[in-house]
Amino acid sequence: MNKTADDILKVNQAFYDAFAAGDYDRLEKLWVKSEDISVIHPGNTALNGRQAVMTSWRQILDNADGNEIRCANPKAYIIGETAYVICNEVFPEGRLIATNIFKIEDGAWRMVHHQAGPDNRPGNLMSSENRLVH
Amino acid sequence: MNKTADDILKVNQAFYDAFAAGDYDRLEKLWVKSEDISVIHPGNTALNGRQAVMTSWRQILDNADGNEIRCANPKAYIIGETAYVICNEVFPEGRLIATNIFKIEDGAWRMVHHQAGPDNRPGNLMSSENRLVH
Repeated sequence: MNKTADDILKVNQAFYDAFAAGDYDRLEKLWVKSEDISVIHPGNTALNGRQAVMTSWRQILDNADGNEIRCANPKAYIIGETAYVICNEVFPEGRLIATNIFKIEDGAWRMVHHQAGPDNRPGNLMSSENRLVH
Repeated sequence: MNKTADDILKVNQAFYDAFAAGDYDRLEKLWVKSEDISVIHPGNTALNGRQAVMTSWRQILDNADGNEIRCANPKAYIIGETAYVICNEVFPEGRLIATNIFKIEDGAWRMVHHQAGPDNRPGNLMSSENRLVH
């Protein structure tokens, strides 16, 4: 079992490669098989459970035109058999910031949770209206 | 060591109680002591390391007027000695959706990461302009 930060970052990159390729099957295989998965897409509430999560990914990959997404500034944190990566998601329209959580399943790092939200640093095209009180 | 979902949710609630009370000292004690902590505040990029994370919390608690925040719909996931909670953060101005990650330190669940972003379901006062391509 490979447990270095580089190993986690490779799986994280594989997720964005599958996303950019619009390849649902590759993306789906990077998630754990169990029901205990969840996702928070930008501006949306949480989805829990395999069917809801995977349906959302299929819709996103089907609907996106080209999926011009690129992972930037990834940073990995490992806690035993769990890990998470914080990274930017760079699109032509702007930039998001994401948390991806992984666990070990069948000897490999697999995703269990993803949250992405706006990153409104200067130069970003997205609105700053969503800055709430914290 | 208490490892049930209820135990995690109690610590998660303690975080929001400290936040609502504007009590920096209580909030700070709920985070692990190490440097490996991070936070993504709504609309902002990631902050890494103890000083950056805690400075941000001190500013938020100092600047907020009343901190009318309430945790809703929490759901806990446990993976060995790591856990995460997905929950809404309800403010008078609207609603956010958050991921809080915890690990065991000195026999207690402590926070290592927090991301909050907009949850624009109907009825929410926040803009939907931040809906990007995924």
